Amino acid sequence: MSRQLHLNAFLMSSGHHEAAWRLPESDPYADVDVDHWIRLARIAERGKLNSLFLADGPVLWQGVEFRPAGQLEPTILLTILATATTHIGLIATASTTYNEPYNLARRFASLDHASGGRAGWNIVTTAGADAARNFGLEDQPDHSDRYQRAEEFVEVSRKLWDSWDDDARQADKATGRYIDPARVHNPEYVGKYYRVAGALNVPRPPQGHPLLVQAGSSEDGKDFAARYADAVFTAHQTLADAQGFYADLKSRAVAAGRDPASVIILPGIVPILAATEAQAQAKAQLLEDLIVPEYGLRQLAAVLEVPQEILKLDEQLPDSIPDSDTIEGAQSRSKLVVALARRERLTVRELIGRLGGGRGHFTFVGTYEQAADVIQEWFENGAADGFNIMGAALPSGLEEFVDHVVPILQERGLFRREYAGRTLREHYGLPRPANQYERVTAGQPGAG
Amino acid sequence: MSRQLHLNAFLMSSGHHEAAWRLPESDPYADVDVDHWIRLARIAERGKLNSLFLADGPVLWQGVEFRPAGQLEPTILLTILATATTHIGLIATASTTYNEPYNLARRFASLDHASGGRAGWNIVTTAGADAARNFGLEDQPDHSDRYQRAEEFVEVSRKLWDSWDDDARQADKATGRYIDPARVHNPEYVGKYYRVAGALNVPRPPQGHPLLVQAGSSEDGKDFAARYADAVFTAHQTLADAQGFYADLKSRAVAAGRDPASVIILPGIVPILAATEAQAQAKAQLLEDLIVPEYGLRQLAAVLEVPQEILKLDEQLPDSIPDSDTIEGAQSRSKLVVALARRERLTVRELIGRLGGGRGHFTFVGTYEQAADVIQEWFENGAADGFNIMGAALPSGLEEFVDHVVPILQERGLFRREYAGRTLREHYGLPRPANQYERVTAGQPGAG
Repeated sequence: MSRQLHLNAFLMSSGHHEAAWRLPESDPYADVDVDHWIRLARIAERGKLNSLFLADGPVLWQGVEFRPAGQLEPTILLTILATATTHIGLIATASTTYNEPYNLARRFASLDHASGGRAGWNIVTTAGADAARNFGLEDQPDHSDRYQRAEEFVEVSRKLWDSWDDDARQADKATGRYIDPARVHNPEYVGKYYRVAGALNVPRPPQGHPLLVQAGSSEDGKDFAARYADAVFTAHQTLADAQGFYADLKSRAVAAGRDPASVIILPGIVPILAATEAQAQAKAQLLEDLIVPEYGLRQLAAVLEVPQEILKLDEQLPDSIPDSDTIEGAQSRSKLVVALARRERLTVRELIGRLGGGRGHFTFVGTYEQAADVIQEWFENGAADGFNIMGAALPSGLEEFVDHVVPILQERGLFRREYAGRTLREHYGLPRPANQYERVTAGQPGAG
Repeated sequence: MSRQLHLNAFLMSSGHHEAAWRLPESDPYADVDVDHWIRLARIAERGKLNSLFLADGPVLWQGVEFRPAGQLEPTILLTILATATTHIGLIATASTTYNEPYNLARRFASLDHASGGRAGWNIVTTAGADAARNFGLEDQPDHSDRYQRAEEFVEVSRKLWDSWDDDARQADKATGRYIDPARVHNPEYVGKYYRVAGALNVPRPPQGHPLLVQAGSSEDGKDFAARYADAVFTAHQTLADAQGFYADLKSRAVAAGRDPASVIILPGIVPILAATEAQAQAKAQLLEDLIVPEYGLRQLAAVLEVPQEILKLDEQLPDSIPDSDTIEGAQSRSKLVVALARRERLTVRELIGRLGGGRGHFTFVGTYEQAADVIQEWFENGAADGFNIMGAALPSGLEEFVDHVVPILQERGLFRREYAGRTLREHYGLPRPANQYERVTAGQPGAG
């Protein structure tokens, strides 16, 4: 079979567009409505997508005045969705800066057991003073400190997931011996940030380790992804930028001693689609007209780290905001936004409109066929191994993609018609990791 | 309606008896088998029980060599059970010593939303150096330190649950205003152990606060329960001991300014039941015969904090182990065990047999009618507001209780035939807590 696309559904209550909740058909209370999420999960599974994904942070977003900002804790919500589906993978974001490895490794192991091997962890280090102040800190730990902590966190988590051999349990009713203690391993991990002595209190997960996902685009983030990530979420506005990132990350993976094909790169796409271009444009316009400029200005000023007063709605960005090399621009959301504004000579109002849909992700407005063309183009030209599908409004944005774009991709032989495996790793074509404590018995005296 | 019993099902994979997994009908891998837990939850709901409960600790139990010791993280497992049931409450144990308030308060709020108001939190401070060593510590924080931390943890959690007014969201599509920021409150909590600045990122839970449960029997534990707990799990071997504890805790609740009826006291009972006494005794003997003495000795030595060598299987406890006042004996599991051994002049082997079923909880062997009699006796004589039902073997131990004892209790007018409410607080007859930030608007100029 030819190389296959990977498609992930990035879910967000009433949609990724900040004004989607204002559409007549939207339920503005969808964020805590379990039935809404179950509906989304079933649509994605109907489309045979690899996985569902939930972003997260331990802080109330600033924009709560203007858009839904509540969200159930992702491992809880995905557990619900596990019971409502049978195959689709379930990827939850969780912070290495504001969790303890023993607790979090156990929670992902539990989700993996509960879902029959469908758990994934999007590893984030959680930027921002607001989150830090919810955990007894005055400000966030600095960037490199957060990434060193993340490395230790993942190292010790892998030891915890491996702490039971796959065959640790004999459960011998005749003798009363439940486990061979030699098959349970204490990590006895001692790092700079974490010390974890004992084994996990859950058997090894069905997948060995949950799928590890990463989305940082800084230098530290890309190095981290190259070493640890099975899949990478990323944001690019142009094919060229995406190609640059793709080549960079794959070469970092090689430098880290890994097979570049084992790091799956998934740029985000916000598809606003219809049967005709004109209809799609009208949809996009409808959403753009619902943006509250006051909120957009505040968000834009925060992303650019400039005073809000210097931004004029009907003028271009002031020259005082530094431009940047667009090839390396993927390093931060700020550079990407400035590059987009300069390249297309957008007014601040237009820029806010463009960002309202995907916060810097690639918004594609067009027909179903055109969306399939773009996906194929990026996929076949070294820019993507698949896509992170970000419905502007939900459920409609996901439903249209599944009902109209997926069949085209299937027709072209680019995407599965049925799930071949049962686990999330299988959907991404990745092997089950070996246990680092596994004893080499073959060839040993008495083994056999 | 007369005062009603409260019944909680304390679940544990193949059962509370340490040897239950060795019974021919037991699935020794039940601990991570979601279908097993769903079956248990549905049996308990069929019996109209108030709630399900899962014990927990962030550490692998020492006994893993001899009995199942893995368990899915309780909030994950109970989320699964929420989807498989409609009414029964869901109580998860979680540690205040090894979690962060923002994360844990959010997880319980999420479970409460996901279950339609059925979440409960059994608050534990987690004793033991083994757990501490999984979280970067050499040893556990001392007892009073753990309880001070727990108090702060609960105080800040209640602020977080209250941080959104119940009517915080207007979601006004016309204006684009989603929330009135005046109706979201930042805790700005500054304690000795915790500082939490911002509001939770989940709307106020359906129950306001999840049901708060506590099970500590030390002086600190009882004072904590008297101030914060809606329900208390406890362990007693005799009616007199249970009465002493009951009177003590209710008076502490009064001293803390609370209505004593708002603190529900639930002793544990391990019912080993059959249609005749002889059949029940045979069941108990079958389980006792399956105990591995090596494991029992190790456990007993650990509970008593004595060297294992001084315990002789066919002799009574050595006199060197101090006796204790049985009325105050409920303060610790150790005193309770010594009192039981002395009172009934048990050999170490017999003591291990008695403890194997419930680790110090009251094991009742007899007919269904006799079990109902004991429950009624404790309930009507100031010893209990209900019981924590601990099936020795599961699912059979719970199924027998639900099918044979519950109907007797219903017949006697002591227990509900149908759920009257939908939330866990309603099942326990407890009100929804007011929001501590709620504004008094009545009578204010312009209010109305």
